[in-house]
Amino acid sequence: MNRSTLAIFLGEWLPKIEFEIRDVLGNSEAEVANHYGMMHYHMGWVDENLRPVHLLAGKRLRPIFLILACAEVGGDPLRAIPAAAAVELLHNFSLIHDDIEDGDEARRHRPTVWKVWGVPQAINAGDGMFTLAFSAMQRMRQRDVSNSTVLKALDTFTQSCLELTEGQHLDMSFERRDEVTVKEYMRMIQGKTASLVGACVSIGARVGNASDEVCESLQRFGRAVGMSFQIRDDILGIWGDPAVTGKPAGNDVLRRKKSFPMLYTLNHPGLGEQFEALLGDNFTADKLPNALEILEKSGARQEAERAAEAWHQASIAALQQALGKDATNSALWALAESLLTRQS
Amino acid sequence: MNRSTLAIFLGEWLPKIEFEIRDVLGNSEAEVANHYGMMHYHMGWVDENLRPVHLLAGKRLRPIFLILACAEVGGDPLRAIPAAAAVELLHNFSLIHDDIEDGDEARRHRPTVWKVWGVPQAINAGDGMFTLAFSAMQRMRQRDVSNSTVLKALDTFTQSCLELTEGQHLDMSFERRDEVTVKEYMRMIQGKTASLVGACVSIGARVGNASDEVCESLQRFGRAVGMSFQIRDDILGIWGDPAVTGKPAGNDVLRRKKSFPMLYTLNHPGLGEQFEALLGDNFTADKLPNALEILEKSGARQEAERAAEAWHQASIAALQQALGKDATNSALWALAESLLTRQS
Repeated sequence: MNRSTLAIFLGEWLPKIEFEIRDVLGNSEAEVANHYGMMHYHMGWVDENLRPVHLLAGKRLRPIFLILACAEVGGDPLRAIPAAAAVELLHNFSLIHDDIEDGDEARRHRPTVWKVWGVPQAINAGDGMFTLAFSAMQRMRQRDVSNSTVLKALDTFTQSCLELTEGQHLDMSFERRDEVTVKEYMRMIQGKTASLVGACVSIGARVGNASDEVCESLQRFGRAVGMSFQIRDDILGIWGDPAVTGKPAGNDVLRRKKSFPMLYTLNHPGLGEQFEALLGDNFTADKLPNALEILEKSGARQEAERAAEAWHQASIAALQQALGKDATNSALWALAESLLTRQS
Repeated sequence: MNRSTLAIFLGEWLPKIEFEIRDVLGNSEAEVANHYGMMHYHMGWVDENLRPVHLLAGKRLRPIFLILACAEVGGDPLRAIPAAAAVELLHNFSLIHDDIEDGDEARRHRPTVWKVWGVPQAINAGDGMFTLAFSAMQRMRQRDVSNSTVLKALDTFTQSCLELTEGQHLDMSFERRDEVTVKEYMRMIQGKTASLVGACVSIGARVGNASDEVCESLQRFGRAVGMSFQIRDDILGIWGDPAVTGKPAGNDVLRRKKSFPMLYTLNHPGLGEQFEALLGDNFTADKLPNALEILEKSGARQEAERAAEAWHQASIAALQQALGKDATNSALWALAESLLTRQS
């Protein structure tokens, strides 16, 4: 497959993934209908009264990476569908809990699950979806995937769940700490963002019967894509075009978010203290131009772009190791590139 | 094995289970030490500053059921140790989240995890322990358990996790509802209590290479023990001897807990309304004798004892089906009986 067939591929496989996700989250028992209803609400299938609605589905990036990797190594994506559903459910479980942990009241222009049903029920609904992500992985047994492959894929999946909680732990710890280094930040996004993308491509390749070596190279590819993507996201969070991102200019500066460029400047030997003082308790929007000036002067933007580019190159190298010379003409690369060059 | 060898058996195997749990929860990376530290605190291994302490370990009832079932069907308990660790971790993950959901500030005479580190970190620490419970299950592969057996055991385990969240969902819903039937209550404790005990004995037998039929009979046995245990717990919550239970007389009445006897009386055709009115907003300890009188008059106590006894009989029948005629001389039965006849 090459990049020109990506759209056709997605047109064929996305509906199958969607069907599988709905099947895994299905429930036929009236007594616990609300438990599953909260999960359906989070997925955008029903409203607060559990009546069907038609929202646009999420981007499903993780499942797409997974089945593309399976196809790319010559496997049958049909066998990977349960795993594709599993990674999407894992991602969504983590969103339900993250929204509680971060106190976020809205997601995709609707109140978050905890905002509608309260924190206790939302924690428990997240736990239910987490469990169903594991269930979904086990459904591969019904698709002629060997027991050994299912278990190896489960190992990768479980390890990634653990790294996800480690990343989230670090992210929350950073909010309470005065000093966080760029190195610590990189460790955090390895867990919170990169790990699951790496797991997706590795699992897809595994189910496609790729060798251990290919699975490992693809996992490194996925991790590098995740890292590059996140740092690029941090750049857009400060210097993105508001007309494209839909967020105010300098949004992450206004929120004093501990992103790559912000931490780079806070840790800058010459400008760190000045930047920290400016961002102090009475930081307001009128000081934004001043903050942006210090950010530029520290070289944070170039440094972030350099880091994103280094991960970008690492991802190409890993993909070439996995697929051979034509890696950059592959659909997997087309997908990665569409992520890395986006403006919003 | 019979009941007289139970103590010797436990003396041999409990330390091995303990070692496995500690190994699964181990972490060698300094950056995320606090994430694992919260889990270690919950297990009673360290204090709030993550310094080692020596608290008495929990009862480890679920792991014991699991390895006893394995031994009882002629299997090697050594192979079941990872699964034994897994069910204890699952139980403890659910306690971390339950404490948040119920707003409980103390557990085993210490502040709960959320009380020490806040709700967001506690949710995430629970998620980490949940993940590690699945990791533990997968460690059976390192103990010569066949892939097929690991996956069947994982199915049972995952299904039980899901029922756990269903049970917790119902339990929390009941608190907000005016009318709950005894039947709904039974459905709730099937999920919240009985399901995991059933999974424990089924998984233990599975790892011991028992047939599907024996695994199913033992699962029914475990579920019935769990039901009987819970209803007995409800009886003790009202009529238990305070000197033995360590809780005030009529504790569950004072807390207006929706337990079996309470719901039975609330749903009583002749006495329900009177009981409900008495328990109303200004219910105080001086009205306890009056409440206990209505409870007795409704026949709630006898009805609860009848239900506990029926599940007790069902558990014997299922165990006999699984193990044959000498079931009540087995160590598994001795363990069940010690639970069902306890006074605290």
